[in-house]
Amino acid sequence: MSATKEQIVTFMAAEFPQTKCRVEAVDANGSSLSHEIGLDELRPGGTVSGPVLMSIADVAIYVAILGKIGIVPLTVTTSLTINFLRKPSAEARIIANCTLIKVGRTLIVGEVSLYSEGSDDMVAHVVGTYSVPPKPNQTVL
Amino acid sequence: MSATKEQIVTFMAAEFPQTKCRVEAVDANGSSLSHEIGLDELRPGGTVSGPVLMSIADVAIYVAILGKIGIVPLTVTTSLTINFLRKPSAEARIIANCTLIKVGRTLIVGEVSLYSEGSDDMVAHVVGTYSVPPKPNQTVL
Amino acid sequence: MSATKEQIVTFMAAEFPQTKCRVEAVDANGSSLSHEIGLDELRPGGTVSGPVLMSIADVAIYVAILGKIGIVPLTVTTSLTINFLRKPSAEARIIANCTLIKVGRTLIVGEVSLYSEGSDDMVAHVVGTYSVPPKPNQTVL
Amino acid sequence: MSATKEQIVTFMAAEFPQTKCRVEAVDANGSSLSHEIGLDELRPGGTVSGPVLMSIADVAIYVAILGKIGIVPLTVTTSLTINFLRKPSAEARIIANCTLIKVGRTLIVGEVSLYSEGSDDMVAHVVGTYSVPPKPNQTVL
Repeated sequence: MSATKEQIVTFMAAEFPQTKCRVEAVDANGSSLSHEIGLDELRPGGTVSGPVLMSIADVAIYVAILGKIGIVPLTVTTSLTINFLRKPSAEARIIANCTLIKVGRTLIVGEVSLYSEGSDDMVAHVVGTYSVPPKPNQTVL
Repeated sequence: MSATKEQIVTFMAAEFPQTKCRVEAVDANGSSLSHEIGLDELRPGGTVSGPVLMSIADVAIYVAILGKIGIVPLTVTTSLTINFLRKPSAEARIIANCTLIKVGRTLIVGEVSLYSEGSDDMVAHVVGTYSVPPKPNQTVL
Repeated sequence: MSATKEQIVTFMAAEFPQTKCRVEAVDANGSSLSHEIGLDELRPGGTVSGPVLMSIADVAIYVAILGKIGIVPLTVTTSLTINFLRKPSAEARIIANCTLIKVGRTLIVGEVSLYSEGSDDMVAHVVGTYSVPPKPNQTVL
Repeated sequence: MSATKEQIVTFMAAEFPQTKCRVEAVDANGSSLSHEIGLDELRPGGTVSGPVLMSIADVAIYVAILGKIGIVPLTVTTSLTINFLRKPSAEARIIANCTLIKVGRTLIVGEVSLYSEGSDDMVAHVVGTYSVPPKPNQTVL
């Protein structure tokens, strides 16, 4: 029922052509993404903007969910908490590592650690919840 | 010590020229912003993307802080929690109303309600915390 | 389909006999609760403990949900974010005012402002999400 | 500058005599705690109450901070986000594993995974932020 990295890359390219996230790895437990940083992602002071970090984390959870339960386009984010921990480098890609910590019938929770490539210091941490449509033939409780 | 709407608009235009947020009102208690929605803000399904909503809320808190404590460029977001409540309209501006619920010496907490213009149903709710540099001549506790 | 204050008070007394929360008001939009503060609620320094504040907010959202959708015992909290804003008084009751900001088919989101009675300064702010079992005869999407 | 497990256990016993948390391990990176579950911790349905889980996580972060920066009694929680993932067992101790993901000059962020002892399935996940008083002789920025 899960999707392979190739299926997910194809799906993302078709459905979210604007994302610059690159899927590095994905399996049933989580995902790893990278994202180039350029002028579009920076804000004054030479730091990666907060919404860009949030966006990468959001995609990382989405990709991890596809890797776990297969291509389910109706999945939507219901909540997201981000903690900004350190100033990301303006010259390194952002790396996002996502682990799914709950895969329920209607709610999936993922945790994401974000880094500037080449550093072990987390720049931001995200916990996000997605709602997935229950399968039609399942009992509703 | 607070800044006027005009001072804030001038500061934002100089420091954050890329933001499409428009300051509608700001005083010592909070701010009200609007943001046009176009192709750049939409994602498949015709809904405003989550990072755009987060970004608007982030700016709304920042503007409210400037309105309260004056132009303090070193202010940074430390955490943000967003709950996505309803699908925003693809054809209406997003309106963000921010109230500051704590103005401490080093931490400021703001709450933001986001709407599609013309509707009373909240599309997203945000609580965000900003860190502000303590004033040099203040006691450090 | 909603429950009255009397029905809710009776239900809470039967199901949660240990809670010291007192329902002051409840209608389809929200609830207002009070909670006595004594030695059990205080921690060193004479402040109300964080888990007590969280607990009151959690009950306030639960009561508001009962007021909105009726007595639904299977409702469970799925996530909760609390911001501690000011030191609560050791000598005043805690007042919690809850507003439901989303009432979906399976997820309900409530926002709670907590005060020390007699003060207008918020001591803590909570956003919490509850999962409610979908009604058996409803379509599952 | 850090504190040993013995120093922390002594400090906690003196300052927080009411806590049932038992410090299993603590070093400069994090802490591990256990907490017995009895009638006081349960709610109807035989599950550990949410505020109890939050309380354990809160103590785990506090203990980890003491392990990192030494005995600093003025440390206070500023925000906490908890996701409830699975129903904890009524018959197993709760185990809390905390990792500090940021140790700043005034803000420390910790992440806690909570389990029912004997199971690898996380029952709850917490991210909490603490404010610590800046050292008097440090530069204030």
